[in-house]
Amino acid sequence: MNHPRLKIVVIGGVAAGASCAARARRLSEDASITLIERGPDVSFANCGLPYHIGGEIESRNALKLHTPQSLSAMLGVNVRTGTEAVEIDHTAKRVAVRRLGEETLEWLDYDKLLLAPGASPLRPPLPGIDNPRIRTLRNLGDMDAIKAAAASARRVAVIGAGFIGLEMAEQFRHMGLEVTLVELQMQLLPQMDAEMTAQLARELTKNGVRLCLGKGIEGFAEKDGAVECRLAGGESVTADLVVLSIGVKPDSALAAKAGLTLGKRGHILVNGFLQTSDPDIYAAGDAVESVDRVTGKPSAVPLGGPANRQGRAAASHMLSPETARPYPGSIGTAIVRAFKVACGMTGWSAKRLQAEGIAFQSVTVKDNHHAGYYPGAKPLTLRVLWEEKTGKILGAQASGEEGVDKRIDVLATAIAAGMTVGDLANLELSYAPPFGSAKDVVNLAGMAAENLADGLLEQVPELPTGDATQIVDVRPPAAFAANPTPHAVNIPLATLRGRLGELDKSRPIVTVCAMGKTSYFAARILKQNGFSAKSLSAQA
Amino acid sequence: MNHPRLKIVVIGGVAAGASCAARARRLSEDASITLIERGPDVSFANCGLPYHIGGEIESRNALKLHTPQSLSAMLGVNVRTGTEAVEIDHTAKRVAVRRLGEETLEWLDYDKLLLAPGASPLRPPLPGIDNPRIRTLRNLGDMDAIKAAAASARRVAVIGAGFIGLEMAEQFRHMGLEVTLVELQMQLLPQMDAEMTAQLARELTKNGVRLCLGKGIEGFAEKDGAVECRLAGGESVTADLVVLSIGVKPDSALAAKAGLTLGKRGHILVNGFLQTSDPDIYAAGDAVESVDRVTGKPSAVPLGGPANRQGRAAASHMLSPETARPYPGSIGTAIVRAFKVACGMTGWSAKRLQAEGIAFQSVTVKDNHHAGYYPGAKPLTLRVLWEEKTGKILGAQASGEEGVDKRIDVLATAIAAGMTVGDLANLELSYAPPFGSAKDVVNLAGMAAENLADGLLEQVPELPTGDATQIVDVRPPAAFAANPTPHAVNIPLATLRGRLGELDKSRPIVTVCAMGKTSYFAARILKQNGFSAKSLSAQA
Repeated sequence: MNHPRLKIVVIGGVAAGASCAARARRLSEDASITLIERGPDVSFANCGLPYHIGGEIESRNALKLHTPQSLSAMLGVNVRTGTEAVEIDHTAKRVAVRRLGEETLEWLDYDKLLLAPGASPLRPPLPGIDNPRIRTLRNLGDMDAIKAAAASARRVAVIGAGFIGLEMAEQFRHMGLEVTLVELQMQLLPQMDAEMTAQLARELTKNGVRLCLGKGIEGFAEKDGAVECRLAGGESVTADLVVLSIGVKPDSALAAKAGLTLGKRGHILVNGFLQTSDPDIYAAGDAVESVDRVTGKPSAVPLGGPANRQGRAAASHMLSPETARPYPGSIGTAIVRAFKVACGMTGWSAKRLQAEGIAFQSVTVKDNHHAGYYPGAKPLTLRVLWEEKTGKILGAQASGEEGVDKRIDVLATAIAAGMTVGDLANLELSYAPPFGSAKDVVNLAGMAAENLADGLLEQVPELPTGDATQIVDVRPPAAFAANPTPHAVNIPLATLRGRLGELDKSRPIVTVCAMGKTSYFAARILKQNGFSAKSLSAQA
Repeated sequence: MNHPRLKIVVIGGVAAGASCAARARRLSEDASITLIERGPDVSFANCGLPYHIGGEIESRNALKLHTPQSLSAMLGVNVRTGTEAVEIDHTAKRVAVRRLGEETLEWLDYDKLLLAPGASPLRPPLPGIDNPRIRTLRNLGDMDAIKAAAASARRVAVIGAGFIGLEMAEQFRHMGLEVTLVELQMQLLPQMDAEMTAQLARELTKNGVRLCLGKGIEGFAEKDGAVECRLAGGESVTADLVVLSIGVKPDSALAAKAGLTLGKRGHILVNGFLQTSDPDIYAAGDAVESVDRVTGKPSAVPLGGPANRQGRAAASHMLSPETARPYPGSIGTAIVRAFKVACGMTGWSAKRLQAEGIAFQSVTVKDNHHAGYYPGAKPLTLRVLWEEKTGKILGAQASGEEGVDKRIDVLATAIAAGMTVGDLANLELSYAPPFGSAKDVVNLAGMAAENLADGLLEQVPELPTGDATQIVDVRPPAAFAANPTPHAVNIPLATLRGRLGELDKSRPIVTVCAMGKTSYFAARILKQNGFSAKSLSAQA
């Protein structure tokens, strides 16, 4: 296990890099470990940056998990910030580094090298893109700049409704700013299926975020001391501050220059032990392409969890190849909160499965996040997708105010285990009134999938239009009156058997309720009485 | 799928019985379904009873998920409350029922019979046990009686510190009563390992519950208009109201009388389809013994989740044996909250594994329930137990103020999937600052298990006493000063490498910190420098 004087150089001092250095030191007190970081900070909490801008995380120092000094003291690592790696000589096993702003190159010898350069926010070459009011968010410096600019801003435009865009929109609203959120696609969170983002869109609108969906950015122009963001179709949004959060690209230039193999989208290709095409050069974090754990296909997941675990796995293989365990690939689990609503996802979405031509089925169910009779129950919508032939779970998405993270974590675990959707029916999850239900919404998804397989459940994803279909809302009269379903007749479930004569057997029926459960019960009654009935799937 | 006029009789109208009736009706509109319930209520929320007593659930009606009338109307089921089943003639396939207080027997024919009689609170034949101030809690009537008695009580004794006992102790404190919680074992929650209940005990004490652990009850006596509870060893507790919550016994008398096979502890034995020894008689819920999903051994889990799913599974097999899926057995997942602290468990505890002689290993880890830099992070302790030879996860327990349910549900899923403890290291759980950490405490458990296997991590479960061992607390000086570890020297981790000379290489060292993580880092430094060092395991 001991490798006296093994020389390890780590390029990049945040999630993957710092994890690698820490694990390497735990495995070997003797190794010489040098950590090179271009920026002034190491081991900071990228994911917390939006929350300091909005003030939810008050102390800037809270985001610095370590200073260069404390990291160096704790790990006995040579930490060099403000230093960039400019060239790798893999034949001589050395890497050239240079202090920012200086000319002198210094060559560092390595036995094992980790590349953890991360990914940069995209900044497409649009007209006016160099306006200093247009910002991106990657590090503490970017955060400081946005926070300073926001302090004197009134109107903010956030371009891109992914994780960072949503978090920034929320935080800017907390600061009292006028916020417009622009997204190229016709939905928030393009990673998810559009229908599953409906609750999130309502929540943002309710909290005063102006949504501008389906609009590409064509360019920017300085206008009266502000920026005019020109959208496709002629519309424009004027803002004192623009945050661009349309995605990231891997910082793989150094790797490319060194001749390491890159993936189709420019990521550094690695094997299960995080080795690049040069076995003494490892790579981890946002810049690498690993494999998708569900399908085995190439996959890059630029998120903190995979970065940390990859950095750790790389160190294990550098120092202890005989016991090192491979990184099994990524699933793509993620979550974001905006105001009270959380959206979570794991594995593949329906639209991604469709795009890849993978045959799948799905159910969307809805129930309270804990026992409905206990105060504070909030509805939660869960979609589960599985492989048609085998039932193997391929993905899941959830939306709600409470308990979204829990259900996504259960599904992420089920996916990692290769469970089938039917297995969800009998998961024995923790139940006491403040925490869950005797039949959790995860169980309901499994039961619904079995009912689908058995031909008991037939759903439509949305309300049909036109007169061809009879729409029967089976909620109690008061609920129907408060929020009537368009073009529906209200026949509460408990009265349905006695009122079958009011319905036309020659026309199909779609049943509707609040959660998508009672409408299933109603459809069962109708079908067994000779009607052609389907129920409306739960809606986020 | 249709079984015209199939006659189904269901005995018991709460969790398992109501689930069975509802599922049966969805599978067949034509079946004749009769639901027999001894009490006045059906389909009520047993698990909510304590919360109505304390007022947390204000409305009594919220606990009635259905009235007999609404259940009957919704399901088209003949609901007969206040009626008990007194005899089964399984040759003639009929069951005798009688209205409470009446003599007349009525014989109901059945094609399929479900027994869902539940379990009764234990009421051991101790001296004075018949005192009307000594109550048990099973149904709405019991709840009303306790609520009424509590209204004029000042002192309450709760006997038994399981789920209901803990919930009652909390609720009585909410009502401002003096509460003594008596438990035969030397710990709260006897289902869990003692060490994992320490935080819960502190929380109860902090909230004014007097704990009386390791005390058996020897009898009760009327005294000055109150009850004196006599404890083993001579102590006594005087209370105006006593709630007995020391466990339940299956209500299997009818099944026994009918000659159905019972288990060792009096439960009704069932197969995977919930059939008893008579294949037309099914049983489900608290009265049955199913199998343990981890070990395949007989297991009875008297909880709402299994009851609901068993009732549903029984109905599926009654009406649709060709597509019915077996109930896979129970894992024993449970959770309880008292004040701010939740304790959760799934699978087997260490003491149960020890008692059965099963070779296992375990780790106990601790970390914040979400990113430490995001406001509101609460420490959470997680213990995972696995089979020594295979790594297969056998059980888990957690304690904390937030996120306990989520980790237990992840572990319950991992157990159901047959995952190994190493698999936990690479679970890809949802991470954003309000929800988790880049390395979740579940991941840490997996990593710790791997470190244990690799000989990197060596732990002691508790602080050693005596001078033989050097105790080194590696927390920062301020943390140490605020809460010093007895007999420890404080050497903060970052200074350890420079202060090795202060330690004696000839004596073993135990390292200590707040979460059990830094102390592991310290032990790694020490071991690699020739010391014999172990770290103190995380403590709940």
